[in-house]
Amino acid sequence: MAVDVVGAGRAGRGRPRSEAVERAIVEGVLKLIEEGVPLTELSIERIARTAGVGKATIYRRWSGKEELFVEVLRIMEDPEPELPGNSMREDLIVLLEHLRRRGLSLRSSALLHNVFAQMKSLPRLWDAYHATVIEPRRRVMFDVLRRGVENGELRPDVDLELANDFIVGPMLLRTMIRPDAPLADDLSERIVDCALAGLRPPD
Amino acid sequence: MAVDVVGAGRAGRGRPRSEAVERAIVEGVLKLIEEGVPLTELSIERIARTAGVGKATIYRRWSGKEELFVEVLRIMEDPEPELPGNSMREDLIVLLEHLRRRGLSLRSSALLHNVFAQMKSLPRLWDAYHATVIEPRRRVMFDVLRRGVENGELRPDVDLELANDFIVGPMLLRTMIRPDAPLADDLSERIVDCALAGLRPPD
Repeated sequence: MAVDVVGAGRAGRGRPRSEAVERAIVEGVLKLIEEGVPLTELSIERIARTAGVGKATIYRRWSGKEELFVEVLRIMEDPEPELPGNSMREDLIVLLEHLRRRGLSLRSSALLHNVFAQMKSLPRLWDAYHATVIEPRRRVMFDVLRRGVENGELRPDVDLELANDFIVGPMLLRTMIRPDAPLADDLSERIVDCALAGLRPPD
Repeated sequence: MAVDVVGAGRAGRGRPRSEAVERAIVEGVLKLIEEGVPLTELSIERIARTAGVGKATIYRRWSGKEELFVEVLRIMEDPEPELPGNSMREDLIVLLEHLRRRGLSLRSSALLHNVFAQMKSLPRLWDAYHATVIEPRRRVMFDVLRRGVENGELRPDVDLELANDFIVGPMLLRTMIRPDAPLADDLSERIVDCALAGLRPPD
């Protein structure tokens, strides 16, 4: 997988001349992980040594290991998608498509897979990833569903939390729980249309 | 959690006089796990010593470690539910309710949680668990969905695999991926009814 180190999500943060330093730090982390060093043994000191910078240079940019690792994870993943905003249906398909592609990346990238597997046993890192990546993604989904209630695409009596689970549940089941499940190109569209229409035969 | 060692799933297998021996073996495994011994270090020899039986006694009943561990897991979980068979809707609710209760047990039992967390990093054990517990559960779900197509409760044009994911996806999302998600008493019924009706407003 191509890793664009000067990725989205950090725009406007560092001054241009510091980008090379940040890139070296993030690449240092990736290099150590690829060499098989467990996340628990990746100290700031070791990362600094690998990147050829001082520890203080890292701490000026990130408050600690968790924040740095979450940024590395965010850089390894595709940036969150832009929503067309024309209809709830279309936006939901775009959001699911992002999850589907993420699932395909997880299957094809041993590095990404390895990092996620390790993260699950590191509660502080998992919490940081959750707050920085998953919660914002979830808020976007709820905004889309709320607009669907407003424009009449979604039943107004549906619990939005349950509606969210109907849209993302089948996709996460296939990407995160069943690693051999089919992820066909049209899956996102089929999930959204099936969730909207329901499984009961039309009257 | 109460562990009924002479549980379902082994009925008719052992002769009555061997039940005490099997119980001692399974309890030996549970005792070692509770003491914090990692599954990878649980040898048949150590289990035999803890249970006070010979290694041959274990091998007469189970072909190896994986088969024995899967049986321990099956015993720790509630037996698979009986299906009333009156309607697809009711049977689906019963199946989801089993998954919901299983999720509640996983949250409340540190032992069960620990064993499942370890199992995920042991591919042979995970495969054996999958073939022995998850695949049969999945086949039951597909039988119920197929009967729903036959009696007109399910759209005949729906891909059964997708229908399955709509029913179990939201529940597994809440029990396996989001450990703090609400698991209210009426969740199974709400998931099934929402999956059947769909999220789109009625015409």
